[in-house]
Amino acid sequence: MDHQSTTGSASTSALSDYLPRKIRSINFLKSKAPKKRNKEFQSEKLKSRRREVMLQRPEHQVAGHEAGSGTLGPLIDGSGNFYKPLNPGDERGAHELAFYTSFYSDTRVPHSIRSSFFPSFGGTRILPVPDSPDLLLPHLVLGDLLHAYTYPCVMDVKMGARTWYPSASEKDFEKYWKKDVESTTPLLGFRISGLQVYHESGRWKPHRDGVRKYTVTDVRQSLRQFVSKKPDETPPDCALASSVYGGSNGILAQLLELKSWFEDQTLFHFYSTSLLIAYDKGGKAAQVKLIDFAHVMKGEGIIDHNFLGGLCSLIKWVSEILTDFEPAVGLTDPKAAAGPAEPEATVGPTENETH
Amino acid sequence: MDHQSTTGSASTSALSDYLPRKIRSINFLKSKAPKKRNKEFQSEKLKSRRREVMLQRPEHQVAGHEAGSGTLGPLIDGSGNFYKPLNPGDERGAHELAFYTSFYSDTRVPHSIRSSFFPSFGGTRILPVPDSPDLLLPHLVLGDLLHAYTYPCVMDVKMGARTWYPSASEKDFEKYWKKDVESTTPLLGFRISGLQVYHESGRWKPHRDGVRKYTVTDVRQSLRQFVSKKPDETPPDCALASSVYGGSNGILAQLLELKSWFEDQTLFHFYSTSLLIAYDKGGKAAQVKLIDFAHVMKGEGIIDHNFLGGLCSLIKWVSEILTDFEPAVGLTDPKAAAGPAEPEATVGPTENETH
Repeated sequence: MDHQSTTGSASTSALSDYLPRKIRSINFLKSKAPKKRNKEFQSEKLKSRRREVMLQRPEHQVAGHEAGSGTLGPLIDGSGNFYKPLNPGDERGAHELAFYTSFYSDTRVPHSIRSSFFPSFGGTRILPVPDSPDLLLPHLVLGDLLHAYTYPCVMDVKMGARTWYPSASEKDFEKYWKKDVESTTPLLGFRISGLQVYHESGRWKPHRDGVRKYTVTDVRQSLRQFVSKKPDETPPDCALASSVYGGSNGILAQLLELKSWFEDQTLFHFYSTSLLIAYDKGGKAAQVKLIDFAHVMKGEGIIDHNFLGGLCSLIKWVSEILTDFEPAVGLTDPKAAAGPAEPEATVGPTENETH
Repeated sequence: MDHQSTTGSASTSALSDYLPRKIRSINFLKSKAPKKRNKEFQSEKLKSRRREVMLQRPEHQVAGHEAGSGTLGPLIDGSGNFYKPLNPGDERGAHELAFYTSFYSDTRVPHSIRSSFFPSFGGTRILPVPDSPDLLLPHLVLGDLLHAYTYPCVMDVKMGARTWYPSASEKDFEKYWKKDVESTTPLLGFRISGLQVYHESGRWKPHRDGVRKYTVTDVRQSLRQFVSKKPDETPPDCALASSVYGGSNGILAQLLELKSWFEDQTLFHFYSTSLLIAYDKGGKAAQVKLIDFAHVMKGEGIIDHNFLGGLCSLIKWVSEILTDFEPAVGLTDPKAAAGPAEPEATVGPTENETH
């Protein structure tokens, strides 16, 4: 799982005005020589901090850049923190930092919205890069949304009927436009960027290249597979639809609460932002979170109809699945049902990737 | 007022399957030689029908093509009918006829939605063209939405964050795209195509060329001017906001009812369709109607998030005006308030166009 996908690049940040002077002046945001620049950070204090943090790549990343040799990606520390690198010379990181700083200091955002639908934000931290331990980079410190999940079932849904943003350069516009029209984005108002589902004999995780080509029919099918005990069988059984999508704390209820906020809020326009939808076969409750804020713009008194339209579209399809599969006896608690309903002992770490 | 704006042209109609065989076979839909073709209709029966109907150009058209010398536009008969020409060789007319035929025969559309938000449809009728009485053309027979209005205040709001439709040719796409990005369409999810407001000394009707250039600020202002006793003064007084936008039968209540249907309906996607918002200084109730269906596509099980997003955006702004201007004493009946509140005797036919 990637809390913030790192595709695309931002033009001049419309949110940078929000950045405190101190953060705006951090040199890495404009650095063209990362290795040289980062040597400056290599103090004894930092070296000792590196030893304190046991960093690893997130196992359940379903979309976005992955940390690996030659590639910078997010890291987790196993203690509930998710670190997203702020790559030198890449304005997307600066833009995302500006968003978090603005969002967490804006009193017009209801506390319930912030805590329910956004990752926690703990500022920035200098950390070593995997495979290049001498290279130190600043990272966003975010809450690890899947911390303590045993068998996380995760879906990354990129929202909006368009992902390009008003201030995009012509080159960026072309790139985003192409990705949009080759996906379900204009048709559905959203696209699936990745997913994984645990089942009795392991993990079902369609390959990214396949997900990228998903048609409208594939997306409809995926929303059913996501709540199935046997997701790779046709038709999907949707045995967990009621417990995951339904109920007073289920995914649908959360999506509807989010929708209410989007019908009213005119502070931010969330271009190219994803909904991370997750539940745990190990028992933790289902959750909906917004992630990836590299292209958030100021709302300027206008609602984010692009995100909201896609959200309504997603809600409609989730509702339909519930109507088709909800048991007549009524709704159950998703926390109780998503856990024990699945025989945990039979779910193992074996990966069963579908290409 | 124009019930169906006639800009743009449709590619192959995705709705034409809906057309009954009899209508599909009407030659005018494909005709390349209108004058010659229309001579076939000039029977004695038709000539006598022409004499029965006293046709005139609609006085309160605020957008779309107007009937005039060399131009075909809609006509009214003063008895509650609005006639929209089906121009030979123009597939938009065929497409709109296909929509009406499909829409009025689809039992999945609730009766209340059809009667509240759509013009009535009475099939087609052969009528003479103004200034060319020997030329006869088939017309859509629709309800005249402003019939019996004394002093109609009218606004045409073209809905959606885009007006181009999936099957548009490259040429059409370019045309629609250009109009969209030069307007508030992508930013607001709608644009104002035209408006008129009666006030104490006449009619305030901004010129079309000016309306075409409306910015976000202009649109916000127009929504206020529309419910003002002195619309051309700054700032607009919004004296009629409560009676027109508010109340259980007011514009906002109607927009919210329409929104509920759009959150659920997956039958149609209304590209380039307008909301006609109207009230009468002479006393008739406020109404919201959908008009212009030349580019409606099949919904294929997906909600019309493009229209819905814009609708939510419009609702937000109308709500804000109500919050700013609604009297603390509570809501009043728009029918009662929009009428007598305005001294009818002082409202005359004098036109006061603003360029």
